[in-house]
Amino acid sequence: MRVLVTAGGTTEQIDDVRGITNFSTGRLGSLIASYYSKDPTVKITYICGKNAVQPIAATTIEIIEIGSTQELLTAVTNCLKKETYDVVVHSMAVSDYYLVGSSGEKELLTHLTETAEQSGESLKNGLDQAFLARNQTEKKLSSQIETLYLQLKQTPKVIALIKQLQPETCLVGFKLLVAVPQAELIAVAERLMTSNHCDFVLANDKSQITADQHIGYLVDSMGKYTKYQTKDAIAQGIVEQTTRGRITK
Amino acid sequence: MRVLVTAGGTTEQIDDVRGITNFSTGRLGSLIASYYSKDPTVKITYICGKNAVQPIAATTIEIIEIGSTQELLTAVTNCLKKETYDVVVHSMAVSDYYLVGSSGEKELLTHLTETAEQSGESLKNGLDQAFLARNQTEKKLSSQIETLYLQLKQTPKVIALIKQLQPETCLVGFKLLVAVPQAELIAVAERLMTSNHCDFVLANDKSQITADQHIGYLVDSMGKYTKYQTKDAIAQGIVEQTTRGRITK
Repeated sequence: MRVLVTAGGTTEQIDDVRGITNFSTGRLGSLIASYYSKDPTVKITYICGKNAVQPIAATTIEIIEIGSTQELLTAVTNCLKKETYDVVVHSMAVSDYYLVGSSGEKELLTHLTETAEQSGESLKNGLDQAFLARNQTEKKLSSQIETLYLQLKQTPKVIALIKQLQPETCLVGFKLLVAVPQAELIAVAERLMTSNHCDFVLANDKSQITADQHIGYLVDSMGKYTKYQTKDAIAQGIVEQTTRGRITK
Repeated sequence: MRVLVTAGGTTEQIDDVRGITNFSTGRLGSLIASYYSKDPTVKITYICGKNAVQPIAATTIEIIEIGSTQELLTAVTNCLKKETYDVVVHSMAVSDYYLVGSSGEKELLTHLTETAEQSGESLKNGLDQAFLARNQTEKKLSSQIETLYLQLKQTPKVIALIKQLQPETCLVGFKLLVAVPQAELIAVAERLMTSNHCDFVLANDKSQITADQHIGYLVDSMGKYTKYQTKDAIAQGIVEQTTRGRITK
């Protein structure tokens, strides 16, 4: 049996010393990988963000470190094209945006004023030009700009790629929301499940995660869910539910 | 003798799960604190970013963890108002900007179009309104916005505060640039020294920092400098040069 676990968070660089990061520590993902590795016949690939918590060392775990969402996409694609995975647990917190460029207020206003007599679409061009002008030209942003603007664009959804490449894999998606009612959390998890053909989605709410508690709902494709109280229990639950009935390869 | 060391990087939150961070690990700062603590009569306050490397545990080191630049400002101010520090080593990578708000392209263009017939100043108002509209209203940014804009403003300079509060302290500033000629690096360090009344500035270039090398120039207020090759040597050099001739209190 072969399992791919993603964990931690991505980092989108703003310049050589700054970046936009997701706060995920990778602790839950590392526990999941560690639980899978208790069966020595399970081969695990662990793709994680820099600084993510690592699973307990095991010869059956291959670790791949990535930075940006683009690097994650490349790593996941390479893995899924090279090997057949029985299970993919995508717990990584992926940046939904990458940085196109930055602009100081003065140059942004200059670009916009030039197109100010014109309507909607041209203002949009003014915006795009302002940010493209500064794209990738600086190693370290000046700290002397009073008001700074960043333009970000959506990154491709990594989770959408998984079943496209391996329709037969068992896919566990993750949905983290902040301070929403439980019914909304489950409903959003079910939408993620449908749109990305997940077999399970672990739904959790940041406001219910503390040092010694991690409430998580492992929702299956029939809409049923199991509630867990700790990271350990979630990790164990995911491993049990995704390996149940599988013949060890 | 009492020493304040700041280390690691600040994090400006975008929402509950994302932030703009400086990549500094705090490794150099932690070594500096560890070197000071070899003299058991030196009391050290270590202010660091979350996830920063910690100095070797010692009863003489008090550790204060901070997140944003504003939290750093508060912590440094509290320390300098409470105690007299003989030396302040400000090695922390401080975010030069904090997040005012975010705006999707559609709502930004709407705000701008409404002020499009008008000139410069009004476009600026349109910008400000667009970002204030979304300021602090969301716990987690939607991932469904095609193009997203962030508005950031300059944070106050923490280093400027230190000699204002304690003119008698020995202040060591840090300047990190990326891939510049050595003469430029030293010149920028000297400007930082003058504008913030530093006694020393450690000037370093990210392109000259690798796993086992860290080139650093410790510039003094006479413009003379000592070149170091490793983090250990830099830490030891700073401790030696700032404690030389001081009577242990």
